[in-house]
Amino acid sequence: MYYIGIDLGGTYIKAGLVDEQGNIIYKTRIPTRATEAAEVIVADMAQLAHTVIKESGVNTDDIESIGIGSPGTCDSKNGILVYANNINFKNVPIRDMMQKHIDLPVFIGNDANCAAWGEYCMLPEKVNDIVFITLGTGVGGGAVIGGKLYEGFNGAAMEVGHTLLLRGGELCTCGRRGCFEAYASVTALVRMTREYIAVRPHSTLAHRCGQNILDIDGKTAFDAARDGDEGGKEIIYEWTKYVAEGLVDIINLFQPQYLIIGGAVSHEGDFLLNPIKEHISAYRYTRDSQLQTRIQISSCGNDAGLIGAAFLGR
Amino acid sequence: MYYIGIDLGGTYIKAGLVDEQGNIIYKTRIPTRATEAAEVIVADMAQLAHTVIKESGVNTDDIESIGIGSPGTCDSKNGILVYANNINFKNVPIRDMMQKHIDLPVFIGNDANCAAWGEYCMLPEKVNDIVFITLGTGVGGGAVIGGKLYEGFNGAAMEVGHTLLLRGGELCTCGRRGCFEAYASVTALVRMTREYIAVRPHSTLAHRCGQNILDIDGKTAFDAARDGDEGGKEIIYEWTKYVAEGLVDIINLFQPQYLIIGGAVSHEGDFLLNPIKEHISAYRYTRDSQLQTRIQISSCGNDAGLIGAAFLGR
Repeated sequence: MYYIGIDLGGTYIKAGLVDEQGNIIYKTRIPTRATEAAEVIVADMAQLAHTVIKESGVNTDDIESIGIGSPGTCDSKNGILVYANNINFKNVPIRDMMQKHIDLPVFIGNDANCAAWGEYCMLPEKVNDIVFITLGTGVGGGAVIGGKLYEGFNGAAMEVGHTLLLRGGELCTCGRRGCFEAYASVTALVRMTREYIAVRPHSTLAHRCGQNILDIDGKTAFDAARDGDEGGKEIIYEWTKYVAEGLVDIINLFQPQYLIIGGAVSHEGDFLLNPIKEHISAYRYTRDSQLQTRIQISSCGNDAGLIGAAFLGR
Repeated sequence: MYYIGIDLGGTYIKAGLVDEQGNIIYKTRIPTRATEAAEVIVADMAQLAHTVIKESGVNTDDIESIGIGSPGTCDSKNGILVYANNINFKNVPIRDMMQKHIDLPVFIGNDANCAAWGEYCMLPEKVNDIVFITLGTGVGGGAVIGGKLYEGFNGAAMEVGHTLLLRGGELCTCGRRGCFEAYASVTALVRMTREYIAVRPHSTLAHRCGQNILDIDGKTAFDAARDGDEGGKEIIYEWTKYVAEGLVDIINLFQPQYLIIGGAVSHEGDFLLNPIKEHISAYRYTRDSQLQTRIQISSCGNDAGLIGAAFLGR
């Protein structure tokens, strides 16, 4: 059997056909008409699902279900998108609306939760509990507990980014000061890089970056550090320390078999993972335990959300 | 049927007979011979279980099982106490050792987890997910997820007290700086009360407390606040704010149906609960959601751990 996964983002709607092993057989995307009404966006998703079926050449009878990963809070039991900020949805019964367009079971889930589910399904061994963290513009996360996606009783669980790291510290997008997201997001890494350069305009890092501070992105410090630049190394050291301290909190709470790190920055591979692992070893509560959470980089990359959405119906 | 619960503490071993409804039919305790070898302490627990059976007059055939709540990390699957600090146990196969003394199924669990389980079992409604927090000398916790006690893959999960609140802040007993425990424990409340008095020796609170700073305990500020003392009110306001900020983190992660607060300080009732609820309302991520975690004081009080230990076998 096959599964259709839809990744509803603020910029693109991506859709793909996924087989039982998690291979993406066919993938396509269209821009999200984010300012339009929910009906329009849902119709676009249904249209995209039809495209996937047609273009992949798979028989509809061989498709088990459609899964939609969406930003915001989902009532997955009732198929309702309760609230999504960047596409202006509020209490939209996505499942019922989709089924008017297409005769397949429809499941919905939060996008970070879908990514967690995708990573979980693609692990080479069967485990009970994992936590997935995505480091991007913000910091998101999802957990699989006892082999099931954990959503909390209201679908809003695992807002990992919005737990305190430094009370009263940097202002977070959620209005609170000192959240993990305000220190461990790529946005924070960019801020730290810009601050470093602003304070040290004659550093080699500043010279590397040239005049335009707006060109600095999440790769700047990593690229510099990889080339041996002291400023780059210092920034990566500090930033991964913030990341690691938040991950220690997650480990101290969940003690999952796996803690999986995703998001665009996960492309940095061991260059990201190794300092994080070192910091975690120094701080974790169960330093002496023989059973330690395995920390690793996402194995699905950008496709985790799509695969996980597809597998919601598995 | 009946269940025997044993609460293995650093000072006392408590044991009780619990019926199906969670009523404690009979309860007794002996001092913990904390400096003795594991064999001695286990034999004491078995002896106490025999006492419970004899004194309660219940037929052994009517007893389902024995559950032991212990400090530290438990491998509940294999009945092994992996590590406990205050009684110097390391990889002690408590289950097998107990069964040499007494012919009943034996279960073990971490004490805070047992308390969480006890509170969960005693809720008037059946829910899926709760988190229990105990505010005492330290800050501990436990979670029931999907109707099951959540222990993590190594039995060490839910070290709620050892998640950051203020990175680089007060030194915690775990060696890290700025843990939730370092701000939200009763130990922290006592520290804050002493600091207040040290800085303001002519305050009404200082006069209330008299000369001996060592007489100050976790009730001092509460009692003063209840009597309208400004200093007491200020300390309780600040301390409950720390407590609430950590609880917000727990809610943002778990979104449980219930968040239950236990520990000795929970006797303060609404005087503790109301400011915590107010602070939480101001900070929680899902401020606009219709479905909010219910925050309440422990309904089992000091017996939560005993009832939960007894019900491990249920």
